[in-house]
Amino acid sequence: MTSAAFDVLGIGNAIVDVITRADDAFLGAHGLVKGSMMLIDEARADALYAAMGPGVEISGGSCGNTMAGVASFGGKGAYFGKVRDDQLGEVFGHDLRSLGVSFQTKSASTGPATARCLIMVTPDAQRTMNTYLGACTGLGPADIDTSVVATAKVTYVEGYLWDAPEAKKAVLKAFDAAHAAGRQVSITLSDSFCVHRYREEFRDLVRNKVDIVFGNEAEIKSLYQVETFEEAMEATRKEAKIAVLTRSEKGSVVIKGSETFAVPAAPVTRVVDTTGAGDLYASGFLFGYTHGKSLAECARLGGLAAAEVISHVGARPEQPLRGLI
Amino acid sequence: MTSAAFDVLGIGNAIVDVITRADDAFLGAHGLVKGSMMLIDEARADALYAAMGPGVEISGGSCGNTMAGVASFGGKGAYFGKVRDDQLGEVFGHDLRSLGVSFQTKSASTGPATARCLIMVTPDAQRTMNTYLGACTGLGPADIDTSVVATAKVTYVEGYLWDAPEAKKAVLKAFDAAHAAGRQVSITLSDSFCVHRYREEFRDLVRNKVDIVFGNEAEIKSLYQVETFEEAMEATRKEAKIAVLTRSEKGSVVIKGSETFAVPAAPVTRVVDTTGAGDLYASGFLFGYTHGKSLAECARLGGLAAAEVISHVGARPEQPLRGLI
Repeated sequence: MTSAAFDVLGIGNAIVDVITRADDAFLGAHGLVKGSMMLIDEARADALYAAMGPGVEISGGSCGNTMAGVASFGGKGAYFGKVRDDQLGEVFGHDLRSLGVSFQTKSASTGPATARCLIMVTPDAQRTMNTYLGACTGLGPADIDTSVVATAKVTYVEGYLWDAPEAKKAVLKAFDAAHAAGRQVSITLSDSFCVHRYREEFRDLVRNKVDIVFGNEAEIKSLYQVETFEEAMEATRKEAKIAVLTRSEKGSVVIKGSETFAVPAAPVTRVVDTTGAGDLYASGFLFGYTHGKSLAECARLGGLAAAEVISHVGARPEQPLRGLI
Repeated sequence: MTSAAFDVLGIGNAIVDVITRADDAFLGAHGLVKGSMMLIDEARADALYAAMGPGVEISGGSCGNTMAGVASFGGKGAYFGKVRDDQLGEVFGHDLRSLGVSFQTKSASTGPATARCLIMVTPDAQRTMNTYLGACTGLGPADIDTSVVATAKVTYVEGYLWDAPEAKKAVLKAFDAAHAAGRQVSITLSDSFCVHRYREEFRDLVRNKVDIVFGNEAEIKSLYQVETFEEAMEATRKEAKIAVLTRSEKGSVVIKGSETFAVPAAPVTRVVDTTGAGDLYASGFLFGYTHGKSLAECARLGGLAAAEVISHVGARPEQPLRGLI
């Protein structure tokens, strides 16, 4: 195994967020489930955009956010994801590359526009996400440069990719290439509804392919269809190599075989927008993990990054995360 | 004179801001003058964008910000400005219309892209702006719907429009139509370098056409080429019908003939980004003015709006300004 060119390679849906403030009545009027991610088509995206208030556009995508975080910690990152050759696609690419993340996936020159996620932030700082996948559906196995995969310590993907059938194949190709090169692979469960859509496949991955699985309380309970977090922990312990479970203000728990590391959440003065909390947690954890830190220290770094991102609007860090270490 | 359909009609350069954080070294390395607005061409915009960090895209444009503020106070607004039929143009239009501002100017279907302003916010919360005018240069007299002008209590324009020759002609057409309908017209001096470029024309406008002129300390001193604010006040008093002069943390001064109203700045917990301070000040003042408030009360409303917008990133209000009254 040659030395690693990258700490983390991320593969995800390349999305630009359009963030607005909304109240519970708006969610109700448009049939939105608070805190969840809903897939929408272009017509619905247009209608919802027309109904919503003024927005802020900021690069997003769960795994893109994580890679921004890894780079912000000072880690070396690469990213595979599909945008179109339009203005929002240019924004997405710029924002990753400007942090030093290698992003070489060819933009689509035809087909749907760059993906966007219409995010309503309610006064309780919760985010409700409505994703139009657009160009993301064009990501496929041909976009997986296995020579890059082979030089990344960890290949990290988002469960959301299962919503694009070709992207799932791309992930499986990357996982095989990573393992063939002696590297590790990791997945986030992304969203409890996403887990519901692909439960058996995700369980199979966790059991047989994945080295590190990330999930929050709702996601891991959904994965194992259990009622309590404690049951979910024990079910996970039996199946996952390393499981990293986040619990919002209760902090996080890392499980590896018989070992359990519980780490409290980092303090936050004011929670403004929880968008990206899990994504940035993963960035801190993976930065630590690829730099030889203990699992407890990885969890602590995850918590620090999550605390930064929920203290302002948007799912990308506003200040260099390396300053938090 | 029929009853007014609009409180304020704004005419401005329709711009999407791309806001990033930068340090003084970045400004120095790229020859940027802190606190100013510099016009750049497309090649320079591309080069500067490639060099800068990750950005947040948010609708801007000085007058667009003001109209967003007027609407946020509950005022009835209309806006004339030129975007292209591209993604950022769609964003600009959505953000104004979603606040209830009437925006009917036809988008360009050919020619340069929607304007963007690359804004570097330094740790001292100052903003340094680099504007690629793009589609804005297509605004001309044909875009002035005089039937709308005639039904607006005040037509408000930005001095920046003088940087686009056809836009200047459009403004003069609008001013004449407004006065013919018994309405008032107003201009902001925009930027001290802008005043330097068009000093004689602006002085002539203030003397002969404009009912309300807005300017900050640097701009009004540049307009009359004097050293002190006191000298600028007295020069302004001789030439302007109503002058509204903003002084950052020193508050603002309204001058009308022999009358002078000095109003302190509204308190701000933490100044994050001064982008849009003058634009939002104008929104509060014009909202008050078109609702029959005293000049001192207009200045107070201006100060409240400015305080809101400098407390966060971006030049558009994050919370409804009517809540501040």
